[in-house]
Amino acid sequence: VLVDRPDRNGRAAVLRVHARKILLAADVDLDQIAAMTPGFAGADLANIINEAALLATRRNAAAVTADDLTAALERIVAGLEKKNRLLNPLERKRVAYHEMGHALVAMTLPGADPVQKVSIIPRGIGALGYTIQRPTEDRFVMTQEELEIKMTVLLGGRAAEMLIFGTPSTGAADDLAKATDIARAMIMRFGMHQKLGLVAYEEEHSVFLPGAPAPATSERRYSEGTARDIDCAVRELLAASFDRAMDALTRARPTLERVAGLLLEKESLTGSELLALRQERVPDSGASSRGVAAVAA
Amino acid sequence: VLVDRPDRNGRAAVLRVHARKILLAADVDLDQIAAMTPGFAGADLANIINEAALLATRRNAAAVTADDLTAALERIVAGLEKKNRLLNPLERKRVAYHEMGHALVAMTLPGADPVQKVSIIPRGIGALGYTIQRPTEDRFVMTQEELEIKMTVLLGGRAAEMLIFGTPSTGAADDLAKATDIARAMIMRFGMHQKLGLVAYEEEHSVFLPGAPAPATSERRYSEGTARDIDCAVRELLAASFDRAMDALTRARPTLERVAGLLLEKESLTGSELLALRQERVPDSGASSRGVAAVAA
Amino acid sequence: VLVDRPDRNGRAAVLRVHARKILLAADVDLDQIAAMTPGFAGADLANIINEAALLATRRNAAAVTADDLTAALERIVAGLEKKNRLLNPLERKRVAYHEMGHALVAMTLPGADPVQKVSIIPRGIGALGYTIQRPTEDRFVMTQEELEIKMTVLLGGRAAEMLIFGTPSTGAADDLAKATDIARAMIMRFGMHQKLGLVAYEEEHSVFLPGAPAPATSERRYSEGTARDIDCAVRELLAASFDRAMDALTRARPTLERVAGLLLEKESLTGSELLALRQERVPDSGASSRGVAAVAA
Amino acid sequence: VLVDRPDRNGRAAVLRVHARKILLAADVDLDQIAAMTPGFAGADLANIINEAALLATRRNAAAVTADDLTAALERIVAGLEKKNRLLNPLERKRVAYHEMGHALVAMTLPGADPVQKVSIIPRGIGALGYTIQRPTEDRFVMTQEELEIKMTVLLGGRAAEMLIFGTPSTGAADDLAKATDIARAMIMRFGMHQKLGLVAYEEEHSVFLPGAPAPATSERRYSEGTARDIDCAVRELLAASFDRAMDALTRARPTLERVAGLLLEKESLTGSELLALRQERVPDSGASSRGVAAVAA
Amino acid sequence: VLVDRPDRNGRAAVLRVHARKILLAADVDLDQIAAMTPGFAGADLANIINEAALLATRRNAAAVTADDLTAALERIVAGLEKKNRLLNPLERKRVAYHEMGHALVAMTLPGADPVQKVSIIPRGIGALGYTIQRPTEDRFVMTQEELEIKMTVLLGGRAAEMLIFGTPSTGAADDLAKATDIARAMIMRFGMHQKLGLVAYEEEHSVFLPGAPAPATSERRYSEGTARDIDCAVRELLAASFDRAMDALTRARPTLERVAGLLLEKESLTGSELLALRQERVPDSGASSRGVAAVAA
Amino acid sequence: VLVDRPDRNGRAAVLRVHARKILLAADVDLDQIAAMTPGFAGADLANIINEAALLATRRNAAAVTADDLTAALERIVAGLEKKNRLLNPLERKRVAYHEMGHALVAMTLPGADPVQKVSIIPRGIGALGYTIQRPTEDRFVMTQEELEIKMTVLLGGRAAEMLIFGTPSTGAADDLAKATDIARAMIMRFGMHQKLGLVAYEEEHSVFLPGAPAPATSERRYSEGTARDIDCAVRELLAASFDRAMDALTRARPTLERVAGLLLEKESLTGSELLALRQERVPDSGASSRGVAAVAA
Repeated sequence: VLVDRPDRNGRAAVLRVHARKILLAADVDLDQIAAMTPGFAGADLANIINEAALLATRRNAAAVTADDLTAALERIVAGLEKKNRLLNPLERKRVAYHEMGHALVAMTLPGADPVQKVSIIPRGIGALGYTIQRPTEDRFVMTQEELEIKMTVLLGGRAAEMLIFGTPSTGAADDLAKATDIARAMIMRFGMHQKLGLVAYEEEHSVFLPGAPAPATSERRYSEGTARDIDCAVRELLAASFDRAMDALTRARPTLERVAGLLLEKESLTGSELLALRQERVPDSGASSRGVAAVAA
Repeated sequence: VLVDRPDRNGRAAVLRVHARKILLAADVDLDQIAAMTPGFAGADLANIINEAALLATRRNAAAVTADDLTAALERIVAGLEKKNRLLNPLERKRVAYHEMGHALVAMTLPGADPVQKVSIIPRGIGALGYTIQRPTEDRFVMTQEELEIKMTVLLGGRAAEMLIFGTPSTGAADDLAKATDIARAMIMRFGMHQKLGLVAYEEEHSVFLPGAPAPATSERRYSEGTARDIDCAVRELLAASFDRAMDALTRARPTLERVAGLLLEKESLTGSELLALRQERVPDSGASSRGVAAVAA
Repeated sequence: VLVDRPDRNGRAAVLRVHARKILLAADVDLDQIAAMTPGFAGADLANIINEAALLATRRNAAAVTADDLTAALERIVAGLEKKNRLLNPLERKRVAYHEMGHALVAMTLPGADPVQKVSIIPRGIGALGYTIQRPTEDRFVMTQEELEIKMTVLLGGRAAEMLIFGTPSTGAADDLAKATDIARAMIMRFGMHQKLGLVAYEEEHSVFLPGAPAPATSERRYSEGTARDIDCAVRELLAASFDRAMDALTRARPTLERVAGLLLEKESLTGSELLALRQERVPDSGASSRGVAAVAA
Repeated sequence: VLVDRPDRNGRAAVLRVHARKILLAADVDLDQIAAMTPGFAGADLANIINEAALLATRRNAAAVTADDLTAALERIVAGLEKKNRLLNPLERKRVAYHEMGHALVAMTLPGADPVQKVSIIPRGIGALGYTIQRPTEDRFVMTQEELEIKMTVLLGGRAAEMLIFGTPSTGAADDLAKATDIARAMIMRFGMHQKLGLVAYEEEHSVFLPGAPAPATSERRYSEGTARDIDCAVRELLAASFDRAMDALTRARPTLERVAGLLLEKESLTGSELLALRQERVPDSGASSRGVAAVAA
Repeated sequence: VLVDRPDRNGRAAVLRVHARKILLAADVDLDQIAAMTPGFAGADLANIINEAALLATRRNAAAVTADDLTAALERIVAGLEKKNRLLNPLERKRVAYHEMGHALVAMTLPGADPVQKVSIIPRGIGALGYTIQRPTEDRFVMTQEELEIKMTVLLGGRAAEMLIFGTPSTGAADDLAKATDIARAMIMRFGMHQKLGLVAYEEEHSVFLPGAPAPATSERRYSEGTARDIDCAVRELLAASFDRAMDALTRARPTLERVAGLLLEKESLTGSELLALRQERVPDSGASSRGVAAVAA
Repeated sequence: VLVDRPDRNGRAAVLRVHARKILLAADVDLDQIAAMTPGFAGADLANIINEAALLATRRNAAAVTADDLTAALERIVAGLEKKNRLLNPLERKRVAYHEMGHALVAMTLPGADPVQKVSIIPRGIGALGYTIQRPTEDRFVMTQEELEIKMTVLLGGRAAEMLIFGTPSTGAADDLAKATDIARAMIMRFGMHQKLGLVAYEEEHSVFLPGAPAPATSERRYSEGTARDIDCAVRELLAASFDRAMDALTRARPTLERVAGLLLEKESLTGSELLALRQERVPDSGASSRGVAAVAA
C-alpha cells in the first residue's frame, strides 16, 4: 500500500502522538520541528522523539528540551556524529569552502530555501560536511526558476572550490549527481526545454484509448538523436547554473573567505550566525538583501 | 480470464444489483451514475454504492440520496478528501489557473467532453486539483480530431500557467505523460501520421501465413531513423495541441482570470456554475458557444 | 509435441466423430463446415458441435440444424453476441462503412477469398463489427500477389473511412497490425523485396556444417542500415495496398454508400445478399465482375 | 557428455547391432543404409530398424527387406506420409516445379551431392514436397565452392518458381533461412569474405593468455559498420547463388518442364529415373554431363 | 547493513582490541600498522594480528614483533609468498623494470604517495611483482591533480617497459584497467572534463521533486555521441599520464637501470633503500628532490 | 575457491605424488613430462599417470615406460584415437597441408614454440589433425611480438590451404576464433594498438576512490565509433599475421610439399623428424635456421 507522506500539519500531529510518552520542556515547539521535517515519514518522526528522549536521559534531565530535539533531528538527518574522523588540513579547508559555497549561493539567490546550519564536522558515510536548508513551508508545485535555484545551490560547492583553489576535487560527486537528476527531470518530465518540447520521454501511463490494448514496453522510448539533444540540454542547464553560482561567489568572495575562515575555526555555524556575519560588511549586492529578507520571513 | 468492462447499460445493471441492499431516495437516478462512470469495473461500481451507504449512515439518514452517490463517486475518482493539506498562496493560485486551463479549453473546443466539476481541493496522492469531464456516452471508436482535442485539453493546464505566470512548473508532469501517450498511439498504432504511414510499429499479431512459423521477437522492431521520425512527429503533435490550447485561452483570458479568481475563493465549481459564469460576458468566440451547446446536450 | 492442424478432410473427419453423439438435421453438410474452418484445431471443432447442440436444446429441437451449426461457428469465431452494447450513431455509421470497406475490396479484387458475412453487431472484446471471408479451399502456398490482396482487404476498412469521412479513426488499429505483420514477413522471411534480397532476416536454423559448432544468438541479426531499409519497404508495401484499396472503393463508391446504408439498417448481410445487392447496379468495373465470378466458383 | 555422432563405419556398426534382433532379407545392405544416413545419431538408426520391422510385421513378412528399410528411412527423414492432404492444382504445380528446381540444379552443378529422390507427396509438418540428396561419403571439411553449391541448390526451388511463374511464393521460406545461415557462417566463422577478413565475429574461445583473466561477454562483439558490411556480403552471396541457379535452370528449362510434368503425374521420382529422363534429350550443357558423371560415380 | 570502514584512529582501536589476546614485543607500534592499512575492514585487521601470532609461534617466539606484523601485513596485501614460481630471465628482467617504473615515477612526482617497498618475488594469483605505496594519511577528498598522479604511477610500469625494451607486454593489463577506471570516474562522476561538463553520467539519485514519481532506469543514460566524447577523453587522459610517466623515466633513466639491476639481484627493496640509492647520483631533476621531500615528510 | 594452476616445479611434484603408486621404467623422466604440460591442473596430471598405468597393464608390462606416458599424454591432449574415421582423399590432403602449415610457420618464425608432433590421425570431436607445440618453459609475461607469432602460427593452416589449393575451407574456423581472441585482447586489454591507446575497454576493477561509490555496470562501456576502430584494428592485425604466414610458407613451399607428402604417408611426424626432413634441403631462408636453433635450444 502506497501511503502519502504527512504534510506539516500531519507531521505535527504525529509528533504529538509520539511525544505523549515523554515530558517536554517549556521551550519545545513541536510545530517548529514539523516545519523542519518536510518529506519525513511517520517512522522518522517517531525516531526523533525517541532519540531526543535518549539524549535527555543521558544528561539525567527530567524533560526533553528543544536542544534535545534539535540534536536528535541533526543525528537523523546526517547520521551520527563521528568527531574522530581525521581530515588533513588541506582537505578540511576544501570542505569548509565547499560548504560555504552552498550556503552563500543559497543566501545570495532570491527564492532559495534559507540556510539553517553549515558544518564541517564529518558525519555519516561519505559526508565530510553539510549544509542544511530549511524550507519555510511544504512545497507541492515548483517553478522552473525554483528548480534552477536548487541546481545552482548544489553547484555552489564546486564553484567555491574552483574560485579558491583553481582545481576541482572528488568532493562534488554527489552534488553533480543530484543536479543532473534535476536537469534531466526538467527536460524529460516537466517539458521545460524549448527544443525537446512538451514530451514525456520516459514514463508510460495507461490512458483509456479505444481499440487495441496499450503496449507494455520497458526499453528507451526515444531515438539516439533525441538522446543527443537531451545530453546537450542537460550540459547547458548545468553549465548555466554553475556560471550563476560562480558569479554569485565571485561577487561575494570577501564574505566567502571571511566566513569560511570562521567555519574552519568554529566547525559549524547556524543560519542566524551566518546572517549576522554576512551583514557585517556586504554592501556589494542588492540580491543578497532579498536573500536575507527571505530568510527573515 | 480477460473480462470486458461493462458498458453504460451494463453499469446501470450492476449498480441496480448492488443497490438492492440499500434504500434509495427519490432523487436517485442510477442510469445517470452509470453515464458518469465509463471505464469503471464492477468492483468500482460496488464501491460507490457501499461508500454512499456509509455516508448516509454517518448523517443518520434512512435513505441514500443522489448527493451521497455523487460524493461517493468523487471519493473514488480522485481519492479521499484531505482538506488539511496546505499549499502556499502562490501554489494555490497556480493550481487554480492550471485547472481552469483544462476546464476552459474543454469548454471552448467543439467536441470535447463537457466539464462536470473543477476543484482545487487537494485530493489523493499527488493530485493538487482536478477537473472532471463527463462523457455524454460510452465511446468505442475515436477519430483523429477527437484524440487531438483530448491532447489539447490535457495541455490546457500548462498553457494557462504560461499565459498567466510566464514560466512553467512541475504541475504539468502527469498531463505531459498522458498527452505523450496519446500522440505516440496516434502515430504508432493508429496510422494517423502522414510520414510514418499505415504501419503498426510495436505490436506483434499472429497471422495465419503458410510456410515457416512466425518469429517471436520482443525487441524494438523499427530502425533508429524511424525512431527519430517518431520523436519529431510526437513533438509536433504536442506542440500543435499546445498552440491550440494557448490560442483558446488567449482569446478567453478575461473569462480565465475571472473564473480562476472565483475558483480560488469557492475552491470548487460545478459544470453548470462554470457555464453560467462563462455566459455572463463572453461574446469573444463563436466556437465557445458551440462548446456550451455541446455541454447543454 | 507439436501436432499439425487438420486439413479440410481431417476437419470433416473430426466433425463427424464429434457429431456421432448428436442427431443432425437433413440440411447439415459437415463437409461445408469443414470448408469454413481452415486453421481450426480439433478442440475448436468439438466446440462447434457442442455449441450447436446447446442451441438446438434451447429451442427444444430434436435435431441440430445447419443454422445451429452456423450460429455456433459464428459464436466461436467472433465471440458471443452482445447486442446490448450501445454505439452512438456516428460510431455505428463509421463501423458500417469500415466493414463494408473490407467486404467491397474483397469482392472487387480478383483472387481474394469470397465474403461470407458482414456485420456491425458488436461482438466479443474490442470487435465492433466483423467481416468473415470464406476460403474455398485450404491453402499451403501463397504467392506474393495473394499476400498483397490480403493486405489490401485488411486496409479496406481504413480506406472506406478516409473516402467517406475524410479522417482516420482508432478503429483500424488491429487491421494495421495484421497488415504490418504480413508486409514484414514478405520482406524478412519470404524474400519478396528486391532491395532486401533473398535473405532470411530473423530465424536461426541449424544447418549441418562441418567445423566449429553453430553459434546460438538471440539478438537482432541485421544492421541499423538494413533495419531502415526494412522500415521503408514495409511502409511502401502498405502504402501501395492502401492505394489499391482506395482506388477500388473510389470506383465502387455508389455501391459502398448504398450497401453500407443497408447494413446500418439490417445490421448484418450474408455473402449472397452482398452479391445480389452489388449486381443490381454496378456496371462501373470490369474487375468486380471477375470478383463476382470468383465468388460464384 | 558431448558424444560425437557416428561416421559411416560407425553407423554401419550401430545398424548391425540393432539388426541382430530381426531377420533381414537377402537384398538388405546395411552399409548402403549407413551411407544414406550421415548425421544420424545412434537413436535415429535404432528407430529405422524398429520402423522397418514394424512395416514387415504389418505385411506379415518373415524378413525385413531393403524396401522396408528404405520406407522406414523415409518416414524418419521427412515425417509420416499423409497422402490425404489436399493441395489445389496450382499449389501442386508450384511445389512440383519448386522441388524439380532443387533437383535439377543439384544434377547440373558439378560437385553437388547426387539426388536420390524427389517427391511432391506432402509429408510431416510444413513440408509440401522434398528432395533428398545422398552424399556419397561423410564430409568433414568443406571448401568455399562446396558451400556455394549447397546454397545454389537451396535457392533452386525459388529460381524454378520465378522462371516458370514469374512471381515468388511463401514456399521458399525454409530454403532462404538455410541458405542465409550458410552465407553468414562463410563470412562470420570461416573467413571466406575478402572485406570482412579472417575474423571470427561471434565466438568466444578461451585462449591461454598470461595476465588478467579473459572477459566473459555475451553481447554482439562487432560494430554497426561491420554489421552493415556483413548484411551486404550475405545479400551478395545469396544473389550470386540465386543467379547461378537461375542460369542453370534457364539452360535446362525444357528438361525442367518435361520432368516437372512427369513428377506431377507420378508424384515421386528416384535419382535413377531422374537421370534417365534427363539424359533422353539434354545436349544443352557441358556442365550437366559432368553432373551426371558425378551422380554415376 | 552498510558499515563505514574504520579510519586511522578506528583501525588503531580495532588492532588494539585484537592484540589483547597476544603478547606484543617492545618494538611494535600498532598506530604505525594502522597508518599502513587504509581501506582495511575490521576483519582484515584481525587477520593481520592472527597471522602475526602464527608467524611468532612458528619461530617459537614468546612475543609478536614488528617484523611479524609487517610480514603478516605483506601476506594479506599481496597473497602468500610462492617463491618456487619460475620466471625465465627475460621475464624477470621485464618485471623488475616494470615495478621500478611504478616506483620511480611515484618517487619523482611531487604529491605521489611515498613508496614503501618494491619486489619481484611473485605472489598470489597473477601478481609477478608488486610496488607498495604508503599513504601518509587517510584521504577523503582528492583533487584532479592527485588523481592524475595516481594514473601516472599506474602507467609507470608500461612506460619503463617501452623505454627499456621498446615493445609492450601483457604485464600491464591490470594497470591499464585501474587507470582506465580512474579516468572514467574523473569524466563521468567528478565533472573533471571541460567538454563533458558537470554532468553525472551514470548514477541515479532519488531527489525530492514534487510531481510524478522518479523513473527507475537501469540502462545507459547518455547518447552515442556522448559515449564517443567519453572514449576520446579517456584516451587523452591516459595518453597524457603515460607521456608524463615516460618523461619522468626518460630523465631518470640512469637511476632506473641502476636500481632495476639491484632489484634483480636483491629481489626486493624498501622505500628507504630506494631513497638512498636514488640520492647517490641524481642531480638530473628538481622535481625529484621534491618527491624525496614528500617521502621524507 | 580459485586455485592457481601448478607451475613446472609444481607439476613435477604432483606427478611424483601420483607416480608413487606405480613402478616406473628407467627411461622415465617426470620432469620432462612436467615440461610438456603447462596449464595442466592436478587432476589432468593424475589422469596421465593412470592412463599410462593402464597402457602398461594392457601390454602386460611390469613397469610404466616413457612411451606409455607419452601415449597417455597424447590421449588426454587431443582425445582418444579414432583411427576408423574415414576422410576422403581430398580432405586428407587438405588436412595434411593445413597441419604442416601450422608446423612449418612455427619452425620458420624465430621465437615460436618448437613443434613436438604433427598428425593427421583424426582425434576427439571435430579435430581432424593436430600440431602440438612444446613451450620450453612456463610463460607468465608475453610480449606483443610473441602474441603476433602465436597468431601467425594459428593462421599458418589457412595460409597453407590458400597456397596449395587456392581456396579456403571450413577447416580453419577454430584457428580464426583463437587468433581473433588474441588480437582482441592485444587491443582491448593489453593496450597494444596505437590508435585505441592505453585504455582497458571491457573490465571493471574496483579502485579505491574517495566520494560516491563506484557504479556496477554490465553493458558495453565504449562507443560505436570505438567499436568500429576495434573491428578495423582486429582485421588488420589478423591480415598482417596471415601475410607473414603466407610469406613464410611461400618461401618454404618445396619443404611444405615434400613434408606434407610424407605426412600423408606416415600420418604423423615428430618434431625431430620434421627438423631432420627440413634440414635436408632448405638453403632458402636465413630465418628458418634461427627457427631450428630455437628448437635445438
